Amino acid sequence: MAVSRFAYVKSYELPDPILPNVYVVFRLDGHGFHRFSDIHWFAKPNDERALELMDRAARDVMDAYPDIVLGFGESDEFSFLLRRSCTLYSRRQSKILSTLTSHFTSCYVFHWPTYFPETPLAYPPSFDGRLVVYPTQTEVRDYFSWRQSDTHVNNLYNTVFWALVQQGGMSTTEAHEKLRGTVSSAKNEILFTEFGINYNKLPTRFRKGSTLVREEEVVAPLPTETMIREPSTNLNDDELPPAVPEVEADTSVQGLDPVGQPTESVPREEEGKPPKTGKKKSRKAKKVSVVKVLHCDIIGKEFWERREDILA
Amino acid sequence: MAVSRFAYVKSYELPDPILPNVYVVFRLDGHGFHRFSDIHWFAKPNDERALELMDRAARDVMDAYPDIVLGFGESDEFSFLLRRSCTLYSRRQSKILSTLTSHFTSCYVFHWPTYFPETPLAYPPSFDGRLVVYPTQTEVRDYFSWRQSDTHVNNLYNTVFWALVQQGGMSTTEAHEKLRGTVSSAKNEILFTEFGINYNKLPTRFRKGSTLVREEEVVAPLPTETMIREPSTNLNDDELPPAVPEVEADTSVQGLDPVGQPTESVPREEEGKPPKTGKKKSRKAKKVSVVKVLHCDIIGKEFWERREDILA
Amino acid sequence: MAVSRFAYVKSYELPDPILPNVYVVFRLDGHGFHRFSDIHWFAKPNDERALELMDRAARDVMDAYPDIVLGFGESDEFSFLLRRSCTLYSRRQSKILSTLTSHFTSCYVFHWPTYFPETPLAYPPSFDGRLVVYPTQTEVRDYFSWRQSDTHVNNLYNTVFWALVQQGGMSTTEAHEKLRGTVSSAKNEILFTEFGINYNKLPTRFRKGSTLVREEEVVAPLPTETMIREPSTNLNDDELPPAVPEVEADTSVQGLDPVGQPTESVPREEEGKPPKTGKKKSRKAKKVSVVKVLHCDIIGKEFWERREDILA
Amino acid sequence: MAVSRFAYVKSYELPDPILPNVYVVFRLDGHGFHRFSDIHWFAKPNDERALELMDRAARDVMDAYPDIVLGFGESDEFSFLLRRSCTLYSRRQSKILSTLTSHFTSCYVFHWPTYFPETPLAYPPSFDGRLVVYPTQTEVRDYFSWRQSDTHVNNLYNTVFWALVQQGGMSTTEAHEKLRGTVSSAKNEILFTEFGINYNKLPTRFRKGSTLVREEEVVAPLPTETMIREPSTNLNDDELPPAVPEVEADTSVQGLDPVGQPTESVPREEEGKPPKTGKKKSRKAKKVSVVKVLHCDIIGKEFWERREDILA
Repeated sequence: MAVSRFAYVKSYELPDPILPNVYVVFRLDGHGFHRFSDIHWFAKPNDERALELMDRAARDVMDAYPDIVLGFGESDEFSFLLRRSCTLYSRRQSKILSTLTSHFTSCYVFHWPTYFPETPLAYPPSFDGRLVVYPTQTEVRDYFSWRQSDTHVNNLYNTVFWALVQQGGMSTTEAHEKLRGTVSSAKNEILFTEFGINYNKLPTRFRKGSTLVREEEVVAPLPTETMIREPSTNLNDDELPPAVPEVEADTSVQGLDPVGQPTESVPREEEGKPPKTGKKKSRKAKKVSVVKVLHCDIIGKEFWERREDILA
Repeated sequence: MAVSRFAYVKSYELPDPILPNVYVVFRLDGHGFHRFSDIHWFAKPNDERALELMDRAARDVMDAYPDIVLGFGESDEFSFLLRRSCTLYSRRQSKILSTLTSHFTSCYVFHWPTYFPETPLAYPPSFDGRLVVYPTQTEVRDYFSWRQSDTHVNNLYNTVFWALVQQGGMSTTEAHEKLRGTVSSAKNEILFTEFGINYNKLPTRFRKGSTLVREEEVVAPLPTETMIREPSTNLNDDELPPAVPEVEADTSVQGLDPVGQPTESVPREEEGKPPKTGKKKSRKAKKVSVVKVLHCDIIGKEFWERREDILA
Repeated sequence: MAVSRFAYVKSYELPDPILPNVYVVFRLDGHGFHRFSDIHWFAKPNDERALELMDRAARDVMDAYPDIVLGFGESDEFSFLLRRSCTLYSRRQSKILSTLTSHFTSCYVFHWPTYFPETPLAYPPSFDGRLVVYPTQTEVRDYFSWRQSDTHVNNLYNTVFWALVQQGGMSTTEAHEKLRGTVSSAKNEILFTEFGINYNKLPTRFRKGSTLVREEEVVAPLPTETMIREPSTNLNDDELPPAVPEVEADTSVQGLDPVGQPTESVPREEEGKPPKTGKKKSRKAKKVSVVKVLHCDIIGKEFWERREDILA
Repeated sequence: MAVSRFAYVKSYELPDPILPNVYVVFRLDGHGFHRFSDIHWFAKPNDERALELMDRAARDVMDAYPDIVLGFGESDEFSFLLRRSCTLYSRRQSKILSTLTSHFTSCYVFHWPTYFPETPLAYPPSFDGRLVVYPTQTEVRDYFSWRQSDTHVNNLYNTVFWALVQQGGMSTTEAHEKLRGTVSSAKNEILFTEFGINYNKLPTRFRKGSTLVREEEVVAPLPTETMIREPSTNLNDDELPPAVPEVEADTSVQGLDPVGQPTESVPREEEGKPPKTGKKKSRKAKKVSVVKVLHCDIIGKEFWERREDILA
C-alpha cells in the first residue's frame, strides 16, 4: 500500500505555464446546443431566458474570478478576458481552463430553475472551452469585435430565417434556399417589406450580445434579510451608463428600484454562495466593484476609451 | 461589421494535439471541497451520498464517452483512462480537458437532488481537471495503484481521526497531534482497542474507492414505460463478479432485482438524456456494454488480468 | 547597470521537458544541400566521400552522447535514437535539439578537409533538426524502416535517373519524364537492359544507408603515439558481424588490421578531442563500447533481435 | 520496401508554431567553452580574436536571415532578435531553433582559421540555443539590457580577477577570495590603485559587448575582382555613427578605406558563399542594407530611439 512506490507517476504531469504578460481570452461554447435548445423549447431566433441564464453564469464566473476584466456572450458562447498581469493559478493553462469551464457549467445548471421555472432540465448540458493568448491591445479589441460582428451576422440571418418559417410559412429548407448568398441589405429589406420588422429596433441584447464589465458602485446599507430575487434590468445601447456610473444602474450585487432607493433585498452571495462566517455587515453606503451586463457596441473605440483599465 | 476583417485573431488558436498512441489519464478534483463539504453537512470521515454522487457523475461521463475504459474515484476526485488509440476530438488537449470537466461538473449538479434530497445545493461547486499522458501499461497500472493506495492512507487516517474527535472527545488539534508520525499498524491498533473498530470490516467503498469498468451485460426486454429510479447496489470486494458477468449484477443501464427478474424500470437515458427520436425499442434480450461500479483491489494483478482490454 | 532589475526577463523562458519514458528520435537534414552538392561537385547519384563524412559526423555525435543508441543516415539526413530512459539535459527539448544539431554541424565542417582534401568548403553548410517522440518499440522500428525504405526508393530512382543522363545522354527533363510513374521492377529493368547494371550488386552503403550501433570491442594496447588516420572499413550487408563481435571489425576507436593486429594508430580522441589530463593509458587489452558503421537491413527483425538493448 | 506502410510514423511530428506577433529572441551559448578556451589558449580576461570570430559568425547569420533585426554578443554567447512579424519557416520553433544554431556553429568553425591562423581547431566546438518569446517592446529592451549589464558585471570581475592573478601573482583561489562580496566601486578601486588600470578606458568591445544592427549603406562600384580580406574596423562607443550613417563606417559587405574610397575588395559573399549565377554586377554606387558591429550602450534609450525600426 506504499504510496511512495507509485508516486513517480506524478512526474509525468508536465508544466504548462502561459507566457507572462500576454492577454488571455477564455472562450466556451455550448456542446451540442442545437439539440439542447430543441429539447428545452428555446424560442427562435432568440430565447431571452436562455441568454439571461448565460449572462448569469458569466456574471458568477466574473464575481468569483477578479482577474477577469471583461466578458462577452452571444447565443451559447461566452468569452472572457483575463488581464495581462493575471497570476491566477500561476498561469497554469490546464488549471485555468478546466476550472473556469467547470465553474461556468456549474452556475448554468445551478441557476437553470430560476430562468426556466417551467422547464425542468432534461439532461446535463456541457460546454467546451479554450484559452487563446494575445500579445497586444489591438488583437484583444479585434477579438471582441470579431465576436460581436459574428453576433450581428448570425442574428440577422436567424431573424429573417425564422420570420420566413414562422410567419412566412416556408419550410426550413426553403428559407435557407431563399437566403443563400444574400447580403445584409437584402435581408433587412425582406424583414421590413415582408414582415414589417425594422431590424434596428430589435432588442440590443439580440443585436449586440452581452458585454460584462466591472464598475464601481455605491451600495446602500442593507435594510432587511428577506430573500428576494434581484430584478434583471439589463441595459440597452441607448441607455448606456454615463462615464461616472449612477446608483440606479443594474448590478449583480443588489437590486435597486428605478429611483435608486434600496428595495428589500439581500446581496447576491446569499443566493448562491456559502455564508461567510464572522463577517459583520456594514450598514453604511460604500463603493464596491460590481459586474454589469451591457448590450452596447464594442467595435467602436468609445467603449474602450471609457474603460481604459480593461486593457491596462 | 465585417467578420472577415477581424477573423485573423483566430490564427492565434494554436494546435495542441496529444501524442498518438499514448494512454491519457484525465483526473479532476473538487475545487474548495473542504468548505463545500462543511456547508452541506457531509458526514465524516465518509459521506456515502457524496461518494455515490461522484460515482454517478463519473458513470454518466463514461456513458457519454466510450473512449473512457476505466474510472477510479475517491473522496472528491476522479480519474479516467482514455484508451491509447482514442481519437476523441482529434486528441486536442483543450477540447478533451474542458469538455470532460464540464460534463462531470454538470452531472454532479444535475444529480445532486437525487443524492441529497434534504439538502439544497447552497452554491455551484466546481472542479479542476488535468490530462496526464503515459506511454506504457506499467505506468497506467502504477497510476491507478497510486490513487488507490492514496485512498487507503487517507481513509485510515481520517477514520482514526474522526473516531478520536467524535467518539473520543478530542479536539481536532489534539487528534492531529496524537496521530502525527504514527504508522498504519498503530492507527489500526487505536481504532481497535479504543473504539472497537476493525478497519478491515469497514465498507469496501471507503477503503478501496470506486472503480468503474465496462462489462458486457444481457439486457432483458423492457416491460413497461413507468419512470422509477434504479437501485444503486454497488458491488463490494467480496462480491466481485465472476469473469463471465451474470445478469444480476448492478448496471447503469437498468435496475434488476436480486434474482435477475427485471423490475419495473426504464433505461437510464430516460432520466437524464434527451429522448432519441424514431428509435424503436427492441423487446428481446440483448447484450450491451454497461458501466459498473466496483469497490475492489486494483493494485494486484488480478483485476488487470481479468480485464485485458483496458490496457489493450 | 543592475543586472537584477532586468533579470525578470528570464522568467519568460518556459519549461519544455520531454515526456518521461518515451523514445526520442532526433533527425537532421542538410539545409539547401541540392545547391551545396552542386557547388562542391558531389558525384551523382552517390558521393561516397560525402556519405562517409556524414557517417563520421554521426559517429562523433554518438561518441559524445552515450544516450544515443542507434543512428541511421542516408543522403544528407541522419536520424538518432535516444534510449527511453535518457535523462540528457533533464530531457529539455530545446537544449537537446540545439546541442545535437550544433555538434553534428560542427563535426561536419571540422572533418570536411579529411574527406574532401581537394575541395575547400566554399561556404558554411547548415542542418535543421527536429525531435520526434515515440511511445513504443513498434513505432521506433517502423520509424527506422521508414527511413531505410525511403533510402531504397530514392536510391533506385536516382541510380536510373543518372544512368539515363550520364550514360544515356538524356536531359534531366527527359529522364524525369521517362521515369514518371514507373514501378520498382521497371526501373530495375531499365538499369539492367539499358546499362547492364544489376541494382542489387551496387554497394550496400548506397542501397541500405548507414546504420550506426554500439558494440563491445576488445581494444589492444597502444604500441605507439604516431598520428595516423584510421582506415574506414565499413561493413557490407554480407559481412555482418556475428552476434558476438570479433576483434577485426571496424571501430571508431582504433584502426585494426584485418587479422586483428593493431596497426600503428592512436585513439580517435587524439584527432578531434582535447587531451584528457591525468588519464594514464592502460597498455593491456580491454573491452570498450565502440560505434560501428553498418550497411545492413534494419527493416527485418533480425537486426533488432540481435541488438535487444537498443529498444530495452 | 513500401514506404507507405511505415509513413504513419510521420504523424507523430507534432506542430510547434510560435504565437503570432510576439518578438522572438534566439540566444546561443558555447558548450563547454571554459575548457575550449583553455585548450585553444584564449587570452584572459578577453580574447579579441575569439570575440571577433563570434561577431563574424553572428554577422553571417544576420546576412543569411533578414528577419533578424538585432544581435548582441559577449564572451561565448550571442542573442538575436527576430522581428515580431517574422514568418520564417512558418514560425516553427524546432526549425528556427535548430537552423539558426546550426548556421552559427558552421560559420564559427568555417571562419576559425581566419581568426586563429596559428591555432588549429583541436576539436569541433558546439553551442546550445534557445528561443524566448516576448510580447512587448519593454521586455525586449530589458532583455538586451539584461545581457549588456551582465557583460559589464562579468567583465569587471574578470578584469580584476586576472589582474590579481597575472600581475598580482595571486592564485586563482586567492583572487576569488579577495573579490568575494565586493561591489563595483571596490573592484574599480583595486584596478586603479593596484594596477593603474582605468576600467572606463578599456576597449568598448570588452565593456559593452558587440551589438549588430542593420544600416543602409552606399556601396561603391567594384573596381576589381581581387580576393582580399575585409578590414574589421569595429566601432567604439565614442565613434557611434550619426543618425544618417556615413559611408566610412565598417560594414560586412565591403571594406572601405577611411576616407570612403573603395579599397580593393570583393563583396563578402565571395568569401563564404556560393557564386550566384547569372547576376550581373552593377558598377554604379547603390544603397544596400548591411550589418554593422557596434560596441555601444544599449541600455539607455538613445540607441533605441535612433533605430525605431528594430522594435517596429
